[in-house]
Amino acid sequence: MKNTLLLDVFNHKPVSRVPVWLMRQAGRILTQYKQTRSKATNFVEFVKSPNLAAEVTVQPVDILNIDAAIIFSDILVIAEAMGLPYQIIEEKGPIFQNKIRSEHDLNKLHIAQTEDYSYLLEAIKITKNNLNNRVPLIGFAAAPWTIMAYIVEGSGSKTFSQAKKILYQNSNLAYQILQKITDSTINYLNDQITAGVDVIQIFDSWAGVLNYDLYKNFSYPYIQQILKALNNKVPTIVFAKDAHFFVKDFNMFTSNAVGLDWTLTDKNIFNQVTNKIFQGNADPCLLYASEKTIKLEVNKMLQFFGYKNYIANLGHGLYPDLDVEKVKFFINEVKENSITYFKSNN
Amino acid sequence: MKNTLLLDVFNHKPVSRVPVWLMRQAGRILTQYKQTRSKATNFVEFVKSPNLAAEVTVQPVDILNIDAAIIFSDILVIAEAMGLPYQIIEEKGPIFQNKIRSEHDLNKLHIAQTEDYSYLLEAIKITKNNLNNRVPLIGFAAAPWTIMAYIVEGSGSKTFSQAKKILYQNSNLAYQILQKITDSTINYLNDQITAGVDVIQIFDSWAGVLNYDLYKNFSYPYIQQILKALNNKVPTIVFAKDAHFFVKDFNMFTSNAVGLDWTLTDKNIFNQVTNKIFQGNADPCLLYASEKTIKLEVNKMLQFFGYKNYIANLGHGLYPDLDVEKVKFFINEVKENSITYFKSNN
Repeated sequence: MKNTLLLDVFNHKPVSRVPVWLMRQAGRILTQYKQTRSKATNFVEFVKSPNLAAEVTVQPVDILNIDAAIIFSDILVIAEAMGLPYQIIEEKGPIFQNKIRSEHDLNKLHIAQTEDYSYLLEAIKITKNNLNNRVPLIGFAAAPWTIMAYIVEGSGSKTFSQAKKILYQNSNLAYQILQKITDSTINYLNDQITAGVDVIQIFDSWAGVLNYDLYKNFSYPYIQQILKALNNKVPTIVFAKDAHFFVKDFNMFTSNAVGLDWTLTDKNIFNQVTNKIFQGNADPCLLYASEKTIKLEVNKMLQFFGYKNYIANLGHGLYPDLDVEKVKFFINEVKENSITYFKSNN
Repeated sequence: MKNTLLLDVFNHKPVSRVPVWLMRQAGRILTQYKQTRSKATNFVEFVKSPNLAAEVTVQPVDILNIDAAIIFSDILVIAEAMGLPYQIIEEKGPIFQNKIRSEHDLNKLHIAQTEDYSYLLEAIKITKNNLNNRVPLIGFAAAPWTIMAYIVEGSGSKTFSQAKKILYQNSNLAYQILQKITDSTINYLNDQITAGVDVIQIFDSWAGVLNYDLYKNFSYPYIQQILKALNNKVPTIVFAKDAHFFVKDFNMFTSNAVGLDWTLTDKNIFNQVTNKIFQGNADPCLLYASEKTIKLEVNKMLQFFGYKNYIANLGHGLYPDLDVEKVKFFINEVKENSITYFKSNN
């Protein structure tokens, strides 16, 4: 591997600067992405085309000069692999034709196996070949709760009240749904590792609609099951967005790192989370600001996290209307600022 | 006033039980509401019909036997009063035809005056008459940031990234927008008090897309301006939803009470917020659960808040598909549990 910065942080080796990658770095901010995207008829077909997915995965490495690639995919393909197809509707988000609201519904789903998502494994192999060991490749899946939220609701939601209804009304059904997703996700991520990914990130995008008790009961144990099943084969990151209520228990995850959203800026986090590498956590909207403001805020962020045991990133994915030049400026600021730090502190 | 429980809590007088009201208690969970609603052609017209608004305001007092009424209205009418009309589209939410994204856009708006929202003052007077001093009446407005979020974005949003863009790109424009909304809201709430409301609640529904620095800069000061302008004429409640990052500074609000969303269940809150009455904070989805679970969770909530200096409520508004019998059960549990507590602890 030529650029080992990310892996060095996971291995607690000394680094010359802070590694940086960005959630949704492959995507609509790049004109090259739009060109590739136009070759597929719809978003789900796009994600399921190994050559196209590999192409957009490598684009940000070439264009943004980033320290890791993340395989281009969608968190919901695991639901499709279990037997629940969906569409992504422009400006509306995902729509599932069938929803999972009973044991009968659940029984129609199967535990996803290699053949159900072989396109992704193929995309990983092509990407690894095209990256040619320039930077590590990150694989990912959503946390089981987040997948449950979508397949019960049948779409996005501000409250995910229908999914939460099952947690309150029929916890046994919830446990069954979550276990089937967990078993599928373990296969899915282990196969991604076999296909060549160097790091795994688990996205719990809808952690924030729960609270401490619900999270501890219905999300944390399933993420933990997955982490155990991956057996430290590669470094792992858990990103539980808006789970401020669970920060005090982030130590309990056996992942190497935790992702932090942009609302977590209290120093107290360092007293609560003592055994984790931090990843994050600039507000994506910061990249709308002037270069002067970005420079100031990047410095504040690096000082806050202390440069060591730290991976610079946003606290959520890039928004589609961000200017790619501002994105590059953010990345370069992380690099230059941290190079200066390590030069004068080593 | 026959039922003075809510006002007694604000006045730190002894009470025989915990007062309880529910956000969105007037609304789609009640069949009586749907009947009244059907008399207006659309939602905005409905809100602007004093007799209909008064009717649905009183319904939950009669049906749910609740300790306060809250005037039926919509947080966005203040934008309409400033010259920015909107519609509520079924299953989509509010849509503004024009958006406020420049000084030029802002100049077209005026500071709202009595005549711009006289229908609400009329509704308050009818309601007060119909309530006949049975329970206090709560008036409300949104926090200026929440109104800004909607009028810049032009609709609801998961991220409110267009509104946040202005905070990062053009803070002077943001301050101007927020000040015009603040000046309008001060008129609006002072007129509500003159018309007869007994308590004011300020809803900062989209606090949670900000972070500590943004909140302190762009939301807190404007809420505080409003609170000062109301000059303690009636008790006040600030409900900053998902503002977990600002809890440590809730003391700085000069309101009498703070509303808490359902994610705030850490005992640490009592060390951070020492000078406020608490209001909240059951997860609305709890009301989907069995009576047994509701009973257990109500007990947990009352024990957590300690019964005194406390107003029972949800941590967000009621969801439209909740069963009215479960809602009644929740209310009765708060009453019975707290009566037992005060009998054995006084």
